[in-house]
Amino acid sequence: MAQQDRAIRTRRTILTAAARVFEQRGYQAATISEILTTAGVTKGALYFHFPSKEDLAEGVIRAQDHQLPIPDRACKVQQLVDTVVLHAYRLQTDPLVRAGVRLSLDQQAQGLDRSGPFLRWSEVGTELLHKAQAQGELMPHVVPADTADVLVGAFAGVQAMSQAVSNYQDLPRRVTALLRHVLPSAVVPSVLAAVDITESRGAFVNSTLHHTHTVPQPASLS
Amino acid sequence: MAQQDRAIRTRRTILTAAARVFEQRGYQAATISEILTTAGVTKGALYFHFPSKEDLAEGVIRAQDHQLPIPDRACKVQQLVDTVVLHAYRLQTDPLVRAGVRLSLDQQAQGLDRSGPFLRWSEVGTELLHKAQAQGELMPHVVPADTADVLVGAFAGVQAMSQAVSNYQDLPRRVTALLRHVLPSAVVPSVLAAVDITESRGAFVNSTLHHTHTVPQPASLS
Repeated sequence: MAQQDRAIRTRRTILTAAARVFEQRGYQAATISEILTTAGVTKGALYFHFPSKEDLAEGVIRAQDHQLPIPDRACKVQQLVDTVVLHAYRLQTDPLVRAGVRLSLDQQAQGLDRSGPFLRWSEVGTELLHKAQAQGELMPHVVPADTADVLVGAFAGVQAMSQAVSNYQDLPRRVTALLRHVLPSAVVPSVLAAVDITESRGAFVNSTLHHTHTVPQPASLS
Repeated sequence: MAQQDRAIRTRRTILTAAARVFEQRGYQAATISEILTTAGVTKGALYFHFPSKEDLAEGVIRAQDHQLPIPDRACKVQQLVDTVVLHAYRLQTDPLVRAGVRLSLDQQAQGLDRSGPFLRWSEVGTELLHKAQAQGELMPHVVPADTADVLVGAFAGVQAMSQAVSNYQDLPRRVTALLRHVLPSAVVPSVLAAVDITESRGAFVNSTLHHTHTVPQPASLS
């Protein structure tokens, strides 16, 4: 167990260093040796966890979609909203999450499959929307996968716009605005009226979780 | 006049070359000398039009928001939709527009103000939505600037997702889905029912314009 703890810490140290170097240089220009220097770990440790630069980037990208255990909500639309606003909150507060999102949008990252996070987040959204529809929270015409895709794509752009114009300061306001513009086309009015989409929702959801801040872990250990 | 024509062509040649180099290298790693070689123009011509790498990037970014003259529509919501779908069409078909959008999303582009395109597109949207609201096409609660911001941010992400998962093949479908999800929260139902948001709208709008393809020109000559 102590050994596992140490491995998790080392992994986290490496990913944080990789995140910083990718942020500064971009994927293409980043080098493993700079990540090694920044992390301050042995070459052996680094290659044990991440055999290549692509694996490092993949690790950083995956840190963003490590699922925090949002407790099941009776209202599935609220659970979807909470998933979105918590992600926005983590994006504002966790450099590792931020680096992952940026890598997904780094169109110069040749050889890196950047479709993963989009598709994984779409799956999460589609599943929640299916459940919402099954219990009558959505209008009958809604196709869960289409609505999930719109939300995921739109979120990626809204965060990029927030970064470009305010360095993420206005992210909660923009995410609330996005949800207010998209949800009425899919959610029945009586459910919509009961859902909390206020700007402080992300911080609130985060405060109710067991972790006070995010510690991404390898899937097998989480 | 002949001299003006030549200047416009040279400017276009340089911007196209810059677009290609920025696409391949990213803003940070791109060099003026590589752009010079790719463009095949004289050093003097390049520096006459664009004194620095930042000016080149600014030129490429501005090419994306060069306004094609969409004729005034009686229905302002349709005019807004046409502006969005035409931009999507140009993104699919014009490498220069694509490079501009990518530069706006290049978070490694240090020293480049990437907020410009977001803010300029927001202004375009806000103005059209104000007109739409004045003639009763929008619901009374709509704040034009907020809805414009959501559309602009969301569009940026939807195009990035389309690029990542399908290399832009599914862009018209995704843009139609975005509009179908956002417009019902803002547009009165009778207007919405009359608006054309089909996937082929972008190609149709483009075919009705005077230019068969886009030739960005300096503002003073357009």
